[in-house]
Amino acid sequence: MTYSVQVKVMPLKELLDPQGKAVMGGLQNLGIRSVNDVRIGKNIYLQIEAGSAEEAKKIAEEAGQKLLANPVMEYFEISVN
Amino acid sequence: MTYSVQVKVMPLKELLDPQGKAVMGGLQNLGIRSVNDVRIGKNIYLQIEAGSAEEAKKIAEEAGQKLLANPVMEYFEISVN
Repeated sequence: MTYSVQVKVMPLKELLDPQGKAVMGGLQNLGIRSVNDVRIGKNIYLQIEAGSAEEAKKIAEEAGQKLLANPVMEYFEISVN
Repeated sequence: MTYSVQVKVMPLKELLDPQGKAVMGGLQNLGIRSVNDVRIGKNIYLQIEAGSAEEAKKIAEEAGQKLLANPVMEYFEISVN
């Protein structure tokens, strides 16, 4: 069966997010002033062929650790649909 | 009150996603062969000061239309926590 797995890769909370800061500046310039903070990461959808949701999650975790996220700067979260 | 709003920005389904294709190739090279498709977009967290969740969502929608997503190539989804 094919599982749709969502992997969110975000910059670590301890780190500055210059892309987010730039977008916040852009929003202010557009007159949207009620946004206090912006953090930007990646949203990755994987279509995984697996025997169970558990197995699909394990494969996504392996993918996250080996390729999708850089653990020095990012963390990732997985959800299986 | 401050609402945490998540904006997912993804490439339109009709379009190719070269970044996703490249990541899929990388996964195959790493021996992760059960992934059939990869699509990569952005995951954006906004901290929005608003009177209600409704209002926060409206502000996020305005931000999505004006700055966060390029409607020619991307669509976006909003969820308020």
